[in-house]
Formats: sequence, C-alpha cells, structure tokens
Amino acid sequence: MIRRGAPPEELFEAALAGDRAALARLLSLIERGDDAARTIGRLAHPRSAGGYTIGLTGAPGAGKSTLTSAWIGHLRSLEMELAVLAIDPSSPFTGGAILGDRVRMQDHATDPGVFIRSMATRGHLGGLSLATPEAVRVLHAIGRQLVLVETVGVGQVEVEVAGKADTTVVVVNPGWGDSVQANKAGLMEIADVFVINKADRDGVAETTRDLMQMLDLSDLPHDAWRPPVVPTVGSTGEGVPDLWAAVQEHRQYAESSGLLHERRTFRLREELREIIAQRLGRRARKICSGDRWDELTDGVVAREVDPWTAADEMLAPVDA
Amino acid sequence: MIRRGAPPEELFEAALAGDRAALARLLSLIERGDDAARTIGRLAHPRSAGGYTIGLTGAPGAGKSTLTSAWIGHLRSLEMELAVLAIDPSSPFTGGAILGDRVRMQDHATDPGVFIRSMATRGHLGGLSLATPEAVRVLHAIGRQLVLVETVGVGQVEVEVAGKADTTVVVVNPGWGDSVQANKAGLMEIADVFVINKADRDGVAETTRDLMQMLDLSDLPHDAWRPPVVPTVGSTGEGVPDLWAAVQEHRQYAESSGLLHERRTFRLREELREIIAQRLGRRARKICSGDRWDELTDGVVAREVDPWTAADEMLAPVDA
Repeated sequence: MIRRGAPPEELFEAALAGDRAALARLLSLIERGDDAARTIGRLAHPRSAGGYTIGLTGAPGAGKSTLTSAWIGHLRSLEMELAVLAIDPSSPFTGGAILGDRVRMQDHATDPGVFIRSMATRGHLGGLSLATPEAVRVLHAIGRQLVLVETVGVGQVEVEVAGKADTTVVVVNPGWGDSVQANKAGLMEIADVFVINKADRDGVAETTRDLMQMLDLSDLPHDAWRPPVVPTVGSTGEGVPDLWAAVQEHRQYAESSGLLHERRTFRLREELREIIAQRLGRRARKICSGDRWDELTDGVVAREVDPWTAADEMLAPVDA
Repeated sequence: MIRRGAPPEELFEAALAGDRAALARLLSLIERGDDAARTIGRLAHPRSAGGYTIGLTGAPGAGKSTLTSAWIGHLRSLEMELAVLAIDPSSPFTGGAILGDRVRMQDHATDPGVFIRSMATRGHLGGLSLATPEAVRVLHAIGRQLVLVETVGVGQVEVEVAGKADTTVVVVNPGWGDSVQANKAGLMEIADVFVINKADRDGVAETTRDLMQMLDLSDLPHDAWRPPVVPTVGSTGEGVPDLWAAVQEHRQYAESSGLLHERRTFRLREELREIIAQRLGRRARKICSGDRWDELTDGVVAREVDPWTAADEMLAPVDA
C-alpha cells in the first residue's frame, strides 16, 4: 500500500505496478487540476499513445449505466480489461468511493479487470474539459487501453466531453423523438454509433426510421462513416455484442481512413488552446489587482489617465 | 460640413463645435471598436467628467420608447439638452439613420437640443459592454451632459448595460408579476427608480405592492436608497415630471452619499478589466496559430511533447 503523502511520481510508479489505491489518488489529483496534476500529466502523456477512448452519452433516464454495466460484462467475458469514467457534474467530488446512483455498475466493483471512477468537476481549475482528457491519459498510460467515458447528454460541456472520444456512442430510447430534455442537435452531431436502448419497448422501428431520416438530412459525404443504429436491452444484455461489434467497426474505419488521427490532432489542439486561454485568464486576474492596479484605476476615475492607456500600462510587463 | 475621411481628431473638434454629422461619425467609429475608437476614447475621456448618465430598461412592450419620448419632451420644456442612446442588440448597425421601430422618438428628430442614436453591437470588437461607455463619454465630452441609455431588459448584457448608469430606471407595467419575459431578478437588482408605465390600466396598486414587498425582502440597509415607485402614462406624459423628480432625488442622494463615486469607480474598473481580458484573448488567438503552433501541436499528437510543456513554450514570449 502506497504511503500517505507520496509525491505524484511515486503514485504513478505504484499505479503502473497495478496499485489501484495509487491510481485513485492520481485521479483525485487530476481532478484538482493543480501543479501535481501537471506533473502527472507530463508523466502520463508520452505513455498514453496506445489507448482507445469510447464516449457514451444520452438523455437522463436512457439507461446508460445499466447498458454500461452489461457492456462491461460482455468485455470481461472476452477477457478484456477496461476503465470507466462516469462524469457526474451534479454530484460533489466523491473521493474514489464513487458510483452514486450507478448501482448497476457495482456488479463489477470487486473485479480487478475493471476500474470504475466517477469524476466531478468541482474544484478542477480547468473544469471537465481539461480534467477528462488528463484522466483518460493516466488510465491509458497505466495500462487500461480501453477507457469508456460516460456522461449525461444534457449540458453542452457534457456532450462535448463525450464527443471528444475516439468513438462516440449516443444512447436513445424508443420514442426519443418526443423527448425534449436532451441536447438533440448536439447529440446527433457527435454520434458514431446510435444505440436504441430499452428496445423491448414499443417504437423501436419508428425511432430507427427517425434517426435514419435525420442522418439522411445531415448531408454526410457518401464516403463518410454513417452511424449504425443498434437496438439493445441493457437490463438483459441483449444487443450488447452487436454494440461492441459496431464500435469495433467504427474504430477500424477511423484508423484506416485517417479520421482517428485527424480527431486526435483536433482534440489535442483544442486542449492546448484551452490550457493557454486559462493561463492567460489567470494572468488577467493577477494583472487586475495590486497597488499599481488601484493607483491606475483611481487615475482613470479622476480622468488623469484614459482606460486604454491604463490597459497599455498594466499589460506592459507581459507584452512581447 | 466635415469632409469625408476626416481623421478622428478632426471629427472630434467638429463635434465639439456642434457638428451633428461629425458626432454621428464619431459614434460609428466607436461602434466599430478599432484603433480609431481608441483615439476618440483618449480624446473624450478627460473631457467627460461633468456628464450624468441615466439608464432605462424594462421588458419588451413596457412602453420604454414612448416613455422616453415623453421624457425628452419634458426635459426640452425645461430647456435642457440631452442625448439618447437606444441600444438595439437585434437590429444591424443602422449608420446614424436610426430609430428603427422607435417611431415615437422621431417627434424629436429635428430638434437640435436632442441627439438620438441607436447603437448596435454587431462589429464592435468588445461588444456592447465596451461600446456603450465609450459612446456615453463622447456625448458627455462634446457637451451633452445628460445621456439617457435605453435598453431592452431581456438579455443579461442589456440589463447590465442599463445598470451601469449613474441612475437606473426600471420600467414595468401593471400586472408585471405575471410576466416571465424579463430578467426580473436582474432588473430588481439594478433599479434606482421603478416606473409603472401604462398606469392608466388596471393593477397599478397591486404592482406597487408587489414591488414594495420585493424591496422589503431584498434586505436593504436602513440608510440605503430605497427605489421609489412612480406611475406614468407614456402616451400622455402623465407622471413624467414625477419620474424626473425621482431621478433628480436619486442623483442628489448618490452624489452626497458617495454612492456615485463608488459606482463610477467600480464601473471603470470593470471596463478596464474587460479591456485587458479582451486584449489577452486576442493574444491567445494569435499565440494559437502560425508555424510554431502547428509544429508544437504535431509534437503533442506524436507524444513528443506534453500539452503543458507545449503551453509553456507558446507562452514563453509573453511571460514576464
């Protein structure tokens, strides 16, 4: 067992050797997003090339957790190891105890081949959009090649996070057309595979037709990937092997067509932009405080200096 | 008549001398928000100390323009000169021809004692929150000591812009409690004077009582200004002298209590923060492009460099 207060480097070595408590602590540090997170990120990034990420999202109540649990079961029956990041923007950070209402996933809580972790955004300096890719890279780096990121497809950030996977699965239900809770346009845009979960209910054919029509209207280039529609029943596991086959098919397409490289490049650029924007934002907050700031703003109020000249002066120390 | 292509300095001199076409062109440049706007801002700022700004906002359909027109009439009957900035976020920039659907204000279009201008935000690099105070300062600097800024109290930015006046008037109607269109909490927060316009309709007493109750609940310190509630009928001008009296009373309170100085200091600090944040934002966009950017992001994708080291390197030229 890793000692209390161990530095990130030591935690990382222990996690590489299979220590789950060390891994949990690494992810807590990532969640916090401070200097320790940077250290971990630097360690994980070069080792993270071999991993694959699957995003899974959909409206609340679509049965994502039940489906995920069945999916984990299927992958374990194939002797695959994996990690699940359950993004939970509403609940406070749960320190690794996790799972919240994701009771179904507890079926796998004692299986060493599965690492399940809920991530909350509270406290992370960069929020979900920076914490998630960092956490995924750590999981890839310590040997969990397959990472499933589950989010609720309601908020824009949550949908985007799921959409930044290598393959994104959007979960809908029969009769989805009537629901207005989910960010439908956003979900349509990110889907590589559609799942109609709870397919033992009425309306599967209509929902399939609706999705097909939306895909027809979306004007895909004829050589592009067309998201398949897979019916599943999460509670029985029905259709889950088809879902896994569809995801693998998309992975093959993405790898051979260059789409995967393109997506990863785009994602990393976005991430780098975000890191830079946040650091400049922190600098702005630092610039706009202190004695010189008080003096200058008093001068602006007194009409001794205009706002643009004051801005020039405040920015001078950081101007190239 | 000022010549075409005259530089900002020349336009400013002409506007100081009373040339309305030159003033209109100054405001167009302010609206655009580029280097010319900075020049104008630098000219106007030191001369703008004597002015006073009244914000007027409320839900769409509250009768703001009709009320403003009646108010202008009252002020003109007192031989006061003024300017009106009608902020119109929905309509494109109208180049000084202005007024849009503010037909009632056209009563005053030929009166040299009134300068009416609609401002659109499209195109201004800093948006409404920077263009409005810049335009107000220009109007103050060229001698329009009283500037009335009218906005539709729907969007957060629009409410904020009205709230950044020296005295803010919030226009409601009888039965306002039932309406859900306006940003009610936001409007409550910024009001120095409440107007119940269209007070010839039923429900004035109830709406007055509702407003009073909301004020009671808002837990004002007992020595603070308590917004009075003034009934008006914009279409007949009834109550407009009372509105003007209430605004003057608030002005006296704000000047003698120190509130006015406090507000202006706060506002200018906010404006300076905004200028600095926007300039850093422009720098971020500049940093995240070019050959070095492409090279570094390729390196991040290839796992040769991690995102934080890449961010350090991109930010190095601007690091103090």
